[in-house]
Amino acid sequence: MTSPVRLALLGCGTVGSDVVRLLHEQSVDLAARIGAPLEIAGIAVRRVGRDRGDLPVDPALFTTDPLGLIKRDDVDVVVEMVGGIEPARSWLVEALRAGKSVVTANKALLAEDGATLHDAAAEGGADLYYEASVAGAIPLLRPLRESLHGDRINRVTGIVNGTTNFILSAMDATGAGFAEALEEATELGYAEADPTADVEGFDAAAKAAILASLAFHTRVTAADVHREGITEVTAADVASAKAMGCTIKLLCIAARGTDGRGETVSVRVHPAMIPLSHPLASVGDAFNAVFVEAEAAGQLMFYGRGAGGAPTASAVLGDVVAVARNRLAGVHAASESAYADLAVRPMGEALTRYHISLDVADRPGVLAAVAGVFARHDVSIATVRQGPAGGGPAGRGDDADLVVVTHVAPDAALAATVGELRGLDIVRSVASVLRVEGGA
Amino acid sequence: MTSPVRLALLGCGTVGSDVVRLLHEQSVDLAARIGAPLEIAGIAVRRVGRDRGDLPVDPALFTTDPLGLIKRDDVDVVVEMVGGIEPARSWLVEALRAGKSVVTANKALLAEDGATLHDAAAEGGADLYYEASVAGAIPLLRPLRESLHGDRINRVTGIVNGTTNFILSAMDATGAGFAEALEEATELGYAEADPTADVEGFDAAAKAAILASLAFHTRVTAADVHREGITEVTAADVASAKAMGCTIKLLCIAARGTDGRGETVSVRVHPAMIPLSHPLASVGDAFNAVFVEAEAAGQLMFYGRGAGGAPTASAVLGDVVAVARNRLAGVHAASESAYADLAVRPMGEALTRYHISLDVADRPGVLAAVAGVFARHDVSIATVRQGPAGGGPAGRGDDADLVVVTHVAPDAALAATVGELRGLDIVRSVASVLRVEGGA
Repeated sequence: MTSPVRLALLGCGTVGSDVVRLLHEQSVDLAARIGAPLEIAGIAVRRVGRDRGDLPVDPALFTTDPLGLIKRDDVDVVVEMVGGIEPARSWLVEALRAGKSVVTANKALLAEDGATLHDAAAEGGADLYYEASVAGAIPLLRPLRESLHGDRINRVTGIVNGTTNFILSAMDATGAGFAEALEEATELGYAEADPTADVEGFDAAAKAAILASLAFHTRVTAADVHREGITEVTAADVASAKAMGCTIKLLCIAARGTDGRGETVSVRVHPAMIPLSHPLASVGDAFNAVFVEAEAAGQLMFYGRGAGGAPTASAVLGDVVAVARNRLAGVHAASESAYADLAVRPMGEALTRYHISLDVADRPGVLAAVAGVFARHDVSIATVRQGPAGGGPAGRGDDADLVVVTHVAPDAALAATVGELRGLDIVRSVASVLRVEGGA
Repeated sequence: MTSPVRLALLGCGTVGSDVVRLLHEQSVDLAARIGAPLEIAGIAVRRVGRDRGDLPVDPALFTTDPLGLIKRDDVDVVVEMVGGIEPARSWLVEALRAGKSVVTANKALLAEDGATLHDAAAEGGADLYYEASVAGAIPLLRPLRESLHGDRINRVTGIVNGTTNFILSAMDATGAGFAEALEEATELGYAEADPTADVEGFDAAAKAAILASLAFHTRVTAADVHREGITEVTAADVASAKAMGCTIKLLCIAARGTDGRGETVSVRVHPAMIPLSHPLASVGDAFNAVFVEAEAAGQLMFYGRGAGGAPTASAVLGDVVAVARNRLAGVHAASESAYADLAVRPMGEALTRYHISLDVADRPGVLAAVAGVFARHDVSIATVRQGPAGGGPAGRGDDADLVVVTHVAPDAALAATVGELRGLDIVRSVASVLRVEGGA
C-alpha cells in the first residue's frame, strides 16, 4: 500500500478527541477508501500532561508547539479544531502557504477573514476544507460548492444554532419565557455558561456569512450580516405566533435580490415566525436544518445534528478523506469561487414581512389611523384582525387587540412604520413585533 | 479563456430540454464556475424534424446517430438522458472506454449493471457521475460518496418515488382506496399511463440498489433488492396506521447487519408504517427524502423534489460542472468504491417489525392461542390491544379486534407467524399486516 498520509491535529477537546477515536476505530475502512493509511504525526495541545482517559493514542504524539508541528516535513494535512481568530489564522496561513492541506471547523475565522485563508491556499496550491464549520455533521457545504453548481440559488434559510433552537423549542412547548428556557438549556448542557455567542446570534451570523459566500459566489463576512438574537423574544411573541399557526425560529437568511445596482444579496440573522407547514418548523431541539431554494432544483432541505463531538468529527473526517485523496492523486479541489462579487445590501433594504400585534383604544377611527401609518410608509397590509383586548368576548373595557401582517416591504419602511405606531396616542402598547418568513 | 468543454446530449425529452434551457440561461455563470464555456456538440434524438417549440438551440445540432456523435473527436462529455438498459449501456461503455466522461440519470441501467459502467470508466480513465439517478434534484449521492466517507453508515431509509408518495399521501388525507388515489394521481400527471414501474416498486428498487452500493461500499444490483409495491395497501391499512399514530410510506431501506457470516447488508423496498414524529412522516405529495443514520454523524435527512424536468436537469448540470472541471484540471473523480463487498442478506433474514390486525372470535383462550403462535416462531410481542370488533362498545357480536405489534425479528419468522395465524379457526380474518419502521 502507498505510504501513509500524515495528519497534524491542532486541539484535542471534544471534537479533537472524537476525531482521534474515529481515526482509530475506522482505520481499516479509511485506508481502503483513501488508498493509503492515515497516521497522526502529532497533536498540538495546551498541556501535554492532562489526563485524557482512554484516548487510543500514543502520549508521545502530544506537543505544545503547534507551529513546530505544522512545519514538520512529515506533515501532509493540518486539522484545526482550536477555534477563534488568532493564533489559528497564523497557523493555518503558515500551513497553506507551505502547501499543506487544511481541514478546519473554525466558523469564526472563516466568517471574519476567510479571504486570507483562501488566498493562502491559492498561493500554496493547497486544499482548504471546512464542512464542519456550518451545521456540524450535515453534508451541506459540499452540495452548495459542487452539486448545485449547475443551478442558481435564490435563497438559503437555515436553523444553524442548536442552542437557540433548543431554547425556542422549549418556549414553544411550555410557554416559558426566555430566561427560564435558557436556564433549562444550561442545566441540560445545551447552552454554555456564557451563552452570548449563541443567544445574541453571533454564532449563526458567522455561519450565515459562510453559507452566503458559497451560495452566491461572493465574499461575505460576519460584518456584512445583520444580526439580532433571541433575548428579546417573549412568551407573548410565542403565543402570537401560535395564534397565527406559526412557530418562532432563529433563522439565518441569505437572499438574492435586484435593485438599481443590479443583483445584490442580503444576509441576516433574526428570530422570525414561520408557518407550521414549513419544513423548517418541525426542526426541534438542538437539530439544525438548512432550506435551499434554487431556480431549477426547487426546494431542498438538509437536516441533522449541528453540534457535538461525534457529529462534528464525522464532518472533519469526511474532509480529511477528501484532501487525503486529492493529495494522493496530486490534485486540488476547486478553489474559492467569488466571481459573482454581488453587493451586500444593508438590512434596511432587505425585503421582509412583519407581524405586528397592537393594544389600541377601542373607538371609531382607530383602524383608519393605524392603516394610514402603513400607507404613509408604502407598506401593504396582507391581513388585519381586530378584537376585544384579552381575546375574550368581554375584553378589557375600552381597549382592543389589533393584529396586522404585512406583505413584503423594505425592512427600513417596516421599522419606521412600527416606530410611528408606537408614537400614536391611540396605540396603548406594541405587544409584539416579529418578522414573518417562509410564507407563500 | 480556455477552449470550451463540449457536450454530447443523448435524448431531448423533458429532462434533456431543461438541460438545454439551463445551459443557455446560465451560460455565463457556468463558464465562470468551470473556467471554460460549455458548448453543445450535438444532441442525439429519435426524430430530427420534431417541433421543439422555442428551445434555444441550433436545429443543426440534432442528429439521429448517437454512436457517431459519441465518437466525434470534439466531444468531451456525454450526457445520457434516454433511460433503459440498451442501447444506453452500449453507448456509455463506448464513451467511457474512449476516455469521455459520462453524466447519466439512468437509474435502471446503474442498478442492473452499474459494474459494467464502472469498469469501463476505470478502463478509459473517465468520470462516471449519476447524481440525477436517485432523488432528482436532491444532492445525495455526492454526500454519500464523499462527505460521509469519514464515517460509517448503518442505515439508509428513503422515500425515493414521488408517484407512490403522492398516492399514499392522498389515501392518508382522504381515506380513499388505492385504485381511487391512483386515478387522481394519473389525472394530475403524477402517475404515468402504465404506472407499473412506480406502484410495483421497481423504480424505488433501482434507487435502493444505487444507494446501498454507495452507502456500504458494496456492489448491490436491483436483483438483490426485495421488492413489494403499494398495490395491496388498503384503506383499512391506512386507518390502522392512523390509529397507531403512524402513516404509511413506500420505503427503501438499506441496513447493515451482522450474522454468522460477519457483516451483511439487507436492501428492501416495501410499504411500512412510520410514526408521525419521524422526519420522513411529513414528506408529502411527490417530494422525496432520504434519512441516513451514521455512526458518528447521527441522523441526517436530505429532502427535495425527486422528479420533474428542471430538478433533474439541475442535478445533471451539477455533475456536468464537476466533470468539466475535472477535465480541465486533468484529473478524475474517485472511482467506484466497492472494497467492503458485504454479503447481501435475503429478505427472510432482514430484521423487521410487524403490525398485525386480526378479527378473532371473542371467547376464552383466544389470546393465549394467538400468543402461542408468536412464541412458537420466537417472535416477541411489543404491544397488544384487544377490543370488541368494529371498535364501538357494542361491537359485532361474538367477534373481537386484536392488534399486535411485534419487536424486531427475522422477516421469515414474522411471515410464518402470519401464515399460521391465518390457519387458526379462531382467527376470522387478518385485517391488516404492515411492517413498522422508524420506531424507537
